[in-house]
Amino acid sequence: MQPSAGRVLALAGGVGGAKLALGLSRILPPERLTVVVNTGDDEEVHGLHVSPDLDTAMYTLAGIENPATGWGLRDDTFRTLDALEQLGGDTWFRLGDADIATHLRRTELLSTGMTLSRVTSELCDRLGVQCTLAPMSDDRVRTVALTDAGEMAFQEYFVHRRCEPILSGLRFDGVETAAPSPAFQAALREAAVLVFCPSNPFVSVGPILAVPGVREAVAGLSGARVAVSPIIGGQAVKGPAAKMLVELGEEPSATAVARRYRGLCDVFVLDEVDAALAPEVAALGMRPAITQTLMLSEYDKVELARLVLKVAEGG
Amino acid sequence: MQPSAGRVLALAGGVGGAKLALGLSRILPPERLTVVVNTGDDEEVHGLHVSPDLDTAMYTLAGIENPATGWGLRDDTFRTLDALEQLGGDTWFRLGDADIATHLRRTELLSTGMTLSRVTSELCDRLGVQCTLAPMSDDRVRTVALTDAGEMAFQEYFVHRRCEPILSGLRFDGVETAAPSPAFQAALREAAVLVFCPSNPFVSVGPILAVPGVREAVAGLSGARVAVSPIIGGQAVKGPAAKMLVELGEEPSATAVARRYRGLCDVFVLDEVDAALAPEVAALGMRPAITQTLMLSEYDKVELARLVLKVAEGG
Repeated sequence: MQPSAGRVLALAGGVGGAKLALGLSRILPPERLTVVVNTGDDEEVHGLHVSPDLDTAMYTLAGIENPATGWGLRDDTFRTLDALEQLGGDTWFRLGDADIATHLRRTELLSTGMTLSRVTSELCDRLGVQCTLAPMSDDRVRTVALTDAGEMAFQEYFVHRRCEPILSGLRFDGVETAAPSPAFQAALREAAVLVFCPSNPFVSVGPILAVPGVREAVAGLSGARVAVSPIIGGQAVKGPAAKMLVELGEEPSATAVARRYRGLCDVFVLDEVDAALAPEVAALGMRPAITQTLMLSEYDKVELARLVLKVAEGG
Repeated sequence: MQPSAGRVLALAGGVGGAKLALGLSRILPPERLTVVVNTGDDEEVHGLHVSPDLDTAMYTLAGIENPATGWGLRDDTFRTLDALEQLGGDTWFRLGDADIATHLRRTELLSTGMTLSRVTSELCDRLGVQCTLAPMSDDRVRTVALTDAGEMAFQEYFVHRRCEPILSGLRFDGVETAAPSPAFQAALREAAVLVFCPSNPFVSVGPILAVPGVREAVAGLSGARVAVSPIIGGQAVKGPAAKMLVELGEEPSATAVARRYRGLCDVFVLDEVDAALAPEVAALGMRPAITQTLMLSEYDKVELARLVLKVAEGG
């Protein structure tokens, strides 16, 4: 099957993944795009089921994301959180008023027995997101950060402690018994192109690949597999990917990311500033592709998406 | 024990009860006042534990209530609910953004195993409410309206259906196994004055009296018991009390309310417009007291509270 005809499966985490997913959504008919998102960083906040990566993707695809923060909704207010602070509630996990509606609705629908996939689909319908957006799994998986300050839930590490503890490892609680979501399973069977979005390889793509059967399915995929480096010039565009690489004993480089996708990826997209790394990538058994990968404007996102599909076709 | 020294226990439902409770709080030291509130109309709304009567009392005692609506907080906004509507959620139960913080915090604390009494106490501390405010019970009691349109949860009847179905009866699910809350039990033992606030006798005071042991404790109370009529000139100041009286086969009058408190009450306070009903009240075995009972200003609330304590002392 050719990319110009088949299904495109994008694996995404937070902001970078959502940006490329948006680019892909601008050039693919909705029935050809499946975006599968990490749920390892889901968290219960004040009893609400918050899915940060799903929301970032959903809000971005709906065009209502907050570009300044990378989480939450544009122009949101914080009345509830301000009042909650007065009542003695924890408020380090910032939830805007309109954003809370998403979490209330998700939690309510989940409590009726709906799967996270169906809830996500329902929310997407309401927000006008037309492509398929799905969690990596409908089963509960929770990323735990192993650090010099002890083990802690991912959001505690990521938001509350601002990634300051030194990371020694990660654990994805529950992943052993998790199954890929139905949309993920379908896309893994039929994808003509699989895209590793420029997301954190440890805490965004890592949990997705850790779901039983996924790594094998990706390794055996007949379609083209393209990864975009989240590391540009030794730095993460956003988030702790570079810091994590160092703390986990690797150099903070696009090559180190590529190394994690060895055997799972055919083409690895490097930023122009990392052109010199092309031989290292090639030595890992991937075809390097070089372009501008920083996505500042919507134009950038669409251009990068075009390049990804082009290299997937062998161009 | 004299009212000038002992504990005052006020039984309250919604707005009218909260107003008199505020009046009492202005003239009694906080350690002498216990306000016990109906929880039969508590409801799970979008997974949040909402206690409408407790909140009305708490917000009123904290001076942050919305006087225009009788529920919610002054100057609250509705961002979350607007967003929830877009997501397909029910929005007939109006929850303001700051109000949602109360329900989030209550639900979160309850989920840790705290009793509703302790949660209420914690919220009151945060909001600066100094007297004791307590639920009638820490056990789950749910008022069910029996109507010509079938049985329905109280908020469905009261808010969603605007009391339009014809009422044939009420049921308090769970009340048989409910116990009075600790503060209620303590106040029932030692109250020098018990006040039936001008609240709906069916759906506000009714559930409180239905908690096992309460009716007997009130009947045997050594302190003075004073009720204030919620019906003035055949009409309820607020809410469906008059309509309910008619539908349940009684005349919509202060006397009909007094009849429900026979054997439980020593003094029944009538509004001046109902002065002619004094003989009917006396015939029920209660001493009638006549004053202006409509509480428009804070001055009115304090004056009515003063009158209540005065008649309790035999004045």
